[in-house]
Amino acid sequence: MRTFGVNLGPRSYPVHVGAGILDQLGTLALEAGLRGGRVAVVTDSNVGPLYLRRVTETLDGSKFDPIAIEFAAGEASKSMAVLESIYDRLIAAGIERSGAIVALGGGVVGDLAGFAAATYLRGVALVQVPTTMVAQVDSALGGKTGVNHRAAKNLIGAFYEPRMVLADVATLSTLGQREYREGLAEVIKYGAIMDEPFLGELERGLDAIEARDTQQLEAIVERSLRHKAFVVERDEHESGLRRILNFGHTIGHALEAGFGYGRYLHGEAVAVGMVAAARLSETYAGLSAAQSERLRALIAAMGLPVELPPGWAGEDFIRAIKLDKKRLGDKVEFVLLDRLGHALTHRIDAEEIIEQLSSQSAA
Amino acid sequence: MRTFGVNLGPRSYPVHVGAGILDQLGTLALEAGLRGGRVAVVTDSNVGPLYLRRVTETLDGSKFDPIAIEFAAGEASKSMAVLESIYDRLIAAGIERSGAIVALGGGVVGDLAGFAAATYLRGVALVQVPTTMVAQVDSALGGKTGVNHRAAKNLIGAFYEPRMVLADVATLSTLGQREYREGLAEVIKYGAIMDEPFLGELERGLDAIEARDTQQLEAIVERSLRHKAFVVERDEHESGLRRILNFGHTIGHALEAGFGYGRYLHGEAVAVGMVAAARLSETYAGLSAAQSERLRALIAAMGLPVELPPGWAGEDFIRAIKLDKKRLGDKVEFVLLDRLGHALTHRIDAEEIIEQLSSQSAA
Repeated sequence: MRTFGVNLGPRSYPVHVGAGILDQLGTLALEAGLRGGRVAVVTDSNVGPLYLRRVTETLDGSKFDPIAIEFAAGEASKSMAVLESIYDRLIAAGIERSGAIVALGGGVVGDLAGFAAATYLRGVALVQVPTTMVAQVDSALGGKTGVNHRAAKNLIGAFYEPRMVLADVATLSTLGQREYREGLAEVIKYGAIMDEPFLGELERGLDAIEARDTQQLEAIVERSLRHKAFVVERDEHESGLRRILNFGHTIGHALEAGFGYGRYLHGEAVAVGMVAAARLSETYAGLSAAQSERLRALIAAMGLPVELPPGWAGEDFIRAIKLDKKRLGDKVEFVLLDRLGHALTHRIDAEEIIEQLSSQSAA
Repeated sequence: MRTFGVNLGPRSYPVHVGAGILDQLGTLALEAGLRGGRVAVVTDSNVGPLYLRRVTETLDGSKFDPIAIEFAAGEASKSMAVLESIYDRLIAAGIERSGAIVALGGGVVGDLAGFAAATYLRGVALVQVPTTMVAQVDSALGGKTGVNHRAAKNLIGAFYEPRMVLADVATLSTLGQREYREGLAEVIKYGAIMDEPFLGELERGLDAIEARDTQQLEAIVERSLRHKAFVVERDEHESGLRRILNFGHTIGHALEAGFGYGRYLHGEAVAVGMVAAARLSETYAGLSAAQSERLRALIAAMGLPVELPPGWAGEDFIRAIKLDKKRLGDKVEFVLLDRLGHALTHRIDAEEIIEQLSSQSAA
């Protein structure tokens, strides 16, 4: 098991990464300062059948009295309606201020259970137990929680840090191929924006990554989360540095919105978005064509999509670009690379982004 | 105008108290670091007609571009449904992360608009402009925001500090007699729990208070908010010291729940609750009968109720005591006085509270 801390003053917390550590959750939660007693394990209909029993047992064995709250798997559950049903279950179970919520699952579970923890009784302790690649390398750390609004994803939410993150890489073995690979997009992102040598290790480790080798996964997840922690420690509320984590995400979110949330998984859309952002970086930030191509090739080698799909520049895509949360007036704050391993932000007119991407995808 | 700061590190903010200072809101908001641009003024159907135009004008005159969001006055609006309608209006108005919400009104407006600010786009700047006595001396400062759930008041919420508080005591002149007086209960509370000399000043100033003398009001509101700030600076999230601010509130909340939220105004219920808590303090904390009586007499002299009503110990009252957020197991964490000007907390069994109160109200 690899352990490190996220340093946020009084809200600091430990992060544990390892294979098979799910059964240590109870003990580690007590060590992290949780009190024991009534806690709610929030999970979804995919993850519950796989891991809920083990989580309940480790909590039971460590002075906790767990109850389970399970909702239907899928992005559609990240709604105010499901949030309200979670509140109802928390009240019915008698969860008090001294209680806690354990978020067991992928990004949807972490966001939704995290937002419930942030807002129930003005905040109860939260433990993130991510079980997907995207959640383990990215969303479980850093406090972003929320639900969707019909106008846009994650429009309602809060910054609310967990009291502990426990990433058991053994749970990645049960992911489908697409779900596993989409998480690799976020891994590559850290290399692209802040750690060029990491890209080299990913290139050399392709076979082990494909085989989901446990030691390799531990190393990748730990390195990704340490990068995320570095950024969050310096800019928790995304007023500056943290924006670089949105590399590939402006176009990625627009793709998700433009094609509905069914066609692309989040990480797949981010993969396409990173390749497009690298091309824009050639125009606006002086990234060399060779480095841009190296990034594209690595993303493709991971089995991820790299091209904008036919008909990408539809109405919903364009509206989504313009509605981007990072928008300032008519300009979109865009994350670019001036070289592999180094990101910067640049304000580009929304119309100009569309034009540039059109000329490139037509070329 | 009297100005002081609430010191919470990077989340520190200024508090302004004065008569007629509403028209300085725009300038003061810029001085507090707000950016100008699109902001939403959230208010209710009582306060909007009185002050919305002045607030819009001062913001318009200071680089802000305000839009108004008005909802029906009353506790019933502190709901998830009204909250969602506020989100819709914020989106339609194009409020961005760099935007802000101005909460113009009493406690319901401050709680609801504050929670919207805490959760829209994971948090936008919030300015509290309280216009009732309760809000000016208490709820506008300290970051408690939230909405009600059918099971209990304020069950859903967040701690979210404003970027500025502006209390114009001239707005207190338009309050009805009951609304004005209920706020005095919270004022007396500060004297009871932490400032015995303040009680003496209130006793001597009864006529000026009754006449709503502006200078007197400035002094009272400032002193109350400074006490609130002192407590919040030391325990923002109510894990210790801040609990003393709940003096009178456990029984007060139970009375509100037991008789529906129509019969008692919040401050009236707290007034009765403080007298009951003082009596419990004689039993459990050694408060002298003379000091207990002095507090009762001051509350009565302010025109506030002091006796538990006939039939108080109903089913809803008892359930509410047991559901109290400060509950730990079967015990209720109760705020008591060992002398006027000094509070402590004591865990008392819920059944025992009912028994004690019964024997006293029967006596």
